[in-house]
Amino acid sequence: MRYFKSDNTAAVCPGILDALAQCNVGVALAYGEDRWSASLDAAFGELFETKVRVFTVASGTAANALALATLCPPWSTVLTHAEAHIERDECGAPEFFTGGAKLSLVGGAGAKMSAADLSARLDWFEPHVHGVQPRALSITQSTERGAVYTPPELRALSKIAHDRGMAVHMDGARFANAVVAQSVSPAELSWKAGVDVLSFGIIKNGGMNAEAVVYFDTARIADFEFRRKRAGQLLCKGRYAAVQLLASLEGGLWRKNAERANRLAARIAASAPQLLSVPAQTNQVFMQLGERRIAALSKEFAFYPWGPAGSGEARFVCSWDTPEEDVDALCDALKRIG
Amino acid sequence: MRYFKSDNTAAVCPGILDALAQCNVGVALAYGEDRWSASLDAAFGELFETKVRVFTVASGTAANALALATLCPPWSTVLTHAEAHIERDECGAPEFFTGGAKLSLVGGAGAKMSAADLSARLDWFEPHVHGVQPRALSITQSTERGAVYTPPELRALSKIAHDRGMAVHMDGARFANAVVAQSVSPAELSWKAGVDVLSFGIIKNGGMNAEAVVYFDTARIADFEFRRKRAGQLLCKGRYAAVQLLASLEGGLWRKNAERANRLAARIAASAPQLLSVPAQTNQVFMQLGERRIAALSKEFAFYPWGPAGSGEARFVCSWDTPEEDVDALCDALKRIG
Amino acid sequence: MRYFKSDNTAAVCPGILDALAQCNVGVALAYGEDRWSASLDAAFGELFETKVRVFTVASGTAANALALATLCPPWSTVLTHAEAHIERDECGAPEFFTGGAKLSLVGGAGAKMSAADLSARLDWFEPHVHGVQPRALSITQSTERGAVYTPPELRALSKIAHDRGMAVHMDGARFANAVVAQSVSPAELSWKAGVDVLSFGIIKNGGMNAEAVVYFDTARIADFEFRRKRAGQLLCKGRYAAVQLLASLEGGLWRKNAERANRLAARIAASAPQLLSVPAQTNQVFMQLGERRIAALSKEFAFYPWGPAGSGEARFVCSWDTPEEDVDALCDALKRIG
Amino acid sequence: MRYFKSDNTAAVCPGILDALAQCNVGVALAYGEDRWSASLDAAFGELFETKVRVFTVASGTAANALALATLCPPWSTVLTHAEAHIERDECGAPEFFTGGAKLSLVGGAGAKMSAADLSARLDWFEPHVHGVQPRALSITQSTERGAVYTPPELRALSKIAHDRGMAVHMDGARFANAVVAQSVSPAELSWKAGVDVLSFGIIKNGGMNAEAVVYFDTARIADFEFRRKRAGQLLCKGRYAAVQLLASLEGGLWRKNAERANRLAARIAASAPQLLSVPAQTNQVFMQLGERRIAALSKEFAFYPWGPAGSGEARFVCSWDTPEEDVDALCDALKRIG
Repeated sequence: MRYFKSDNTAAVCPGILDALAQCNVGVALAYGEDRWSASLDAAFGELFETKVRVFTVASGTAANALALATLCPPWSTVLTHAEAHIERDECGAPEFFTGGAKLSLVGGAGAKMSAADLSARLDWFEPHVHGVQPRALSITQSTERGAVYTPPELRALSKIAHDRGMAVHMDGARFANAVVAQSVSPAELSWKAGVDVLSFGIIKNGGMNAEAVVYFDTARIADFEFRRKRAGQLLCKGRYAAVQLLASLEGGLWRKNAERANRLAARIAASAPQLLSVPAQTNQVFMQLGERRIAALSKEFAFYPWGPAGSGEARFVCSWDTPEEDVDALCDALKRIG
Repeated sequence: MRYFKSDNTAAVCPGILDALAQCNVGVALAYGEDRWSASLDAAFGELFETKVRVFTVASGTAANALALATLCPPWSTVLTHAEAHIERDECGAPEFFTGGAKLSLVGGAGAKMSAADLSARLDWFEPHVHGVQPRALSITQSTERGAVYTPPELRALSKIAHDRGMAVHMDGARFANAVVAQSVSPAELSWKAGVDVLSFGIIKNGGMNAEAVVYFDTARIADFEFRRKRAGQLLCKGRYAAVQLLASLEGGLWRKNAERANRLAARIAASAPQLLSVPAQTNQVFMQLGERRIAALSKEFAFYPWGPAGSGEARFVCSWDTPEEDVDALCDALKRIG
Repeated sequence: MRYFKSDNTAAVCPGILDALAQCNVGVALAYGEDRWSASLDAAFGELFETKVRVFTVASGTAANALALATLCPPWSTVLTHAEAHIERDECGAPEFFTGGAKLSLVGGAGAKMSAADLSARLDWFEPHVHGVQPRALSITQSTERGAVYTPPELRALSKIAHDRGMAVHMDGARFANAVVAQSVSPAELSWKAGVDVLSFGIIKNGGMNAEAVVYFDTARIADFEFRRKRAGQLLCKGRYAAVQLLASLEGGLWRKNAERANRLAARIAASAPQLLSVPAQTNQVFMQLGERRIAALSKEFAFYPWGPAGSGEARFVCSWDTPEEDVDALCDALKRIG
Repeated sequence: MRYFKSDNTAAVCPGILDALAQCNVGVALAYGEDRWSASLDAAFGELFETKVRVFTVASGTAANALALATLCPPWSTVLTHAEAHIERDECGAPEFFTGGAKLSLVGGAGAKMSAADLSARLDWFEPHVHGVQPRALSITQSTERGAVYTPPELRALSKIAHDRGMAVHMDGARFANAVVAQSVSPAELSWKAGVDVLSFGIIKNGGMNAEAVVYFDTARIADFEFRRKRAGQLLCKGRYAAVQLLASLEGGLWRKNAERANRLAARIAASAPQLLSVPAQTNQVFMQLGERRIAALSKEFAFYPWGPAGSGEARFVCSWDTPEEDVDALCDALKRIG
């Protein structure tokens, strides 16, 4: 079988695996007191061209939920898209970590919310004790449907949030794919566009088991470190998380991995553009195939059907290590059955 | 400096690092659907000579807190020792994961509780809605003071717990050290002695960032998997957690690592037995040094003072990779100043 | 000013106030061990023509949230209407009491959900650990827009829920108004239509500060009593809660109060039927007045504008003690400006 | 039977019942927007001779737990006595309302903690993320064993707390009894002695179902109002809570009720001083009776045995309405069997 199920089924890229082996010498203080962990702020500061504070955690779910917990008291709500990972794929982690805050959902094609839709949803909330209070906006970049927010779009959303006293969180499990898709800088897609805290993912981009939470507004950090410890997310041997992130930044590895994944996805999309159900901007391709084509392709290719049963839609995801020949085969098959 | 601060400052042992590299080939389904994860139950079942269900998490704190969350509703309490890691070193993780259950503390030298003390503490609780209800007993093996519970001691404690309808959890962050210290089987120190669920640690014993939660009483698993996901502890690329555990079991690596750590600690203890503050049964040595000796040793050795400021007590921990020559040096120094 | 803001601004009706005075003699065991509390099950059993278990709490919010907490683990979700009180007016109480479960919203005019909309919303959920699991359906009867669910409508919704293993909760803060509006029995609007647990409200119907949680399916009670105590909702002097409920049932006082409130509301609706924004079935009347009429009426009448600012809609609520002459005056005014 | 079980089995005193009836006229805005609620701050300000903010709740448990929730983040701990109501009799309410903070226990005779014991317990905590952080001290006045803290004792405890950045909470379910026992002003036993927030109880002192949370340090209020609403403790018809408190303050009713209860208890204590197990300073009397005397007295008197089964200790509590003749009878009986 040729695999297009997800970028999280990929192996760890050599640069990161090598870094793990290289740091594996002698003693290092535990719980982030090691020298690799100590250099994270500087490394990310360079990438983002500003002063940042960076914390490692073991999963993207933890990154999102812990970040939101520092922004949102229990009696508040997070505005987010109805298809967001934090709503649909984390089994209520934000609710758990915040102590019971809500997620309030906004619609929009391509799993993207518009400024108008966000504003309309916010009109539901009143500043009294009877209802929860909006305290954070969470934006997925790139989205669960492979779309990207442009810097102007982000700025418009952030302005609405900030004008209401809300913080802006970005779920960047696939942030790298959004950066390379738009030829903009990481800064332009984050703090320069109003993002206060970013879940910077590497696991879907060649990493093993570490993600970073990047605070641009350090006043928002609040009690992050107590909450991380309490959640079992302060890893004992911190060096093995830190070096994954450092290796990912080193020489732009994060960028190269994402570029390759995006490029392969673009080839798939181009092979049958008439089947695309949403534009393919990053490393995910969604196609309206119908059940017959899905069945035919499933003999050779592993991929997920998408949406409710019988929708006829399918998703193909490329990763840093998807074999070129698998993409060739898929393109051929799509052309054949298109 | 020669390091005796903790076994969690050690590197990853070669057997485990090699296993990580070897599994790093091609695609593997995410979230524990890979073949390594699938073989955990069988591997642990063989080790423990019984049928078990095993789940991986990213830290010992998560292992303990998730296990307790499946045993303890919010209106219940966990009986544990006042010096237990879950009480003193996890920043309230059990309270977080259980939704606000209590820990009710029992005293006892060597961080060990006696059956009598446990019974006396349980007498405080009444079966009405005004007070929390005891639902779990959590025992640390080996203890935070390097002591071990013998099988008869465990059976006595477990019986008290089971007779009151409580489950028995064992925090086995240093379970391996307790097994090799007593020349008993893993089974004899766990389910045969009444343990229902065990946090089986490898991070302090040569692992990188994976621990196992081992359910002997599978009826206790309850909603563990939902809770794990919700806590950001269901790791995306599950193979890299599973292989660490498999490699640790392979050929008894866990045992060899613990034997070495215990043996080195025994040498330290033997070098100045008159200074021991508690018997040294595993890989931790506690000595009543006084401030003068502590100051003298601190020039060459890194270790933690223990207890409240000015107590004069110190802790030395050996790990799988503590250099033999560091132990030589420490023994010499202790003899000199003893 | 003549008040139509809400039925919760009304005084306590004489029958209930008298009952409070009459029970105020001598000693009564605390925490629900008194004889009035002991008779609640029988009294409600008679009303509902079946065996029930009844618990008192101090507010409707507590009734709803505690009931849901017994039905919904933290990793689950409650299906409910987007305008439901539990979503919009309880500041996240269900999330708090459940330990972080979600509310998943269904639309529908009149704050009523249809079976089709419920089914469509449920299609989003999959039985795996990545997403929360639907565990309860919460229906408001009568709804936040004054509508009622008929027995067949309730049965259709309940069937969908039960077929998926979900429990059915009814928020009956205005249950009495729904019963008298339809000339059906309390049983037909509750357990006979599939309701497993009902928040039976009297505070909006002449009570002072007690509500009842009525379990028809006693297996669902679970740990209600521990949760109630832990929430500060097990009242010390239980007799003063119990007698309010008993007095409300006595001689059908609950029914008489609701009949009067509904009748007055019907008069208001009939005075300007062309202005109704939704049908007026119970004691709430919603009218599309426009800003000019709202301003004019506001000089003499106190009422709430409804919906987002500038919507032009208004709500008038009648209670057991709304003066007949206030209704006369409002009807006249509406005819004048209609 | 003559009842000495608790002061919470008493009826509501006439002054409070009358006030409930008198306010029961016409419309009053809900959720504390009524004029009685609006006057609470002034009334309590006068009693305490300082500016205060006062909030009503439905139970003492809610008062304590909500106050602590505003003082204590989830990763913190409350220092309190091992016999405190918040530890033993609230089924984990503080843990629930705080989102999982701990209670850390201090011993001491008479359910009183000494400054030395508090300091020693605080020495266990270190300012790092591995352990919970002390954030509040909770003192019960009068204590669960009927003792009182003097102003100098309170000042010493508060100083220790404030010096560590902790807030001081007082559980004043029987605050009135402590005030009249010492002939000091309410101010001297609260803010003048370092108390930041007080749970002021009236339910055990003639009230029906309302308690007050009194903030002396208004900066500590934080998000109290959101938390109260979310807990179902913001009562709909707020006037019926407010008037109970106002009536209790009116003309010093709270003081008269407590004086009578204390005086009756003093008579009981004086009838058999040789049997007292702790000094009887307020309205509770603890006696070491032995099982034989307990059995004999139980034929005529209802009271609770105290402590673990077989302790032979008993508790007698007097309330505002304990019949004088019941006290006569108990005194006679105690003299007879003493």
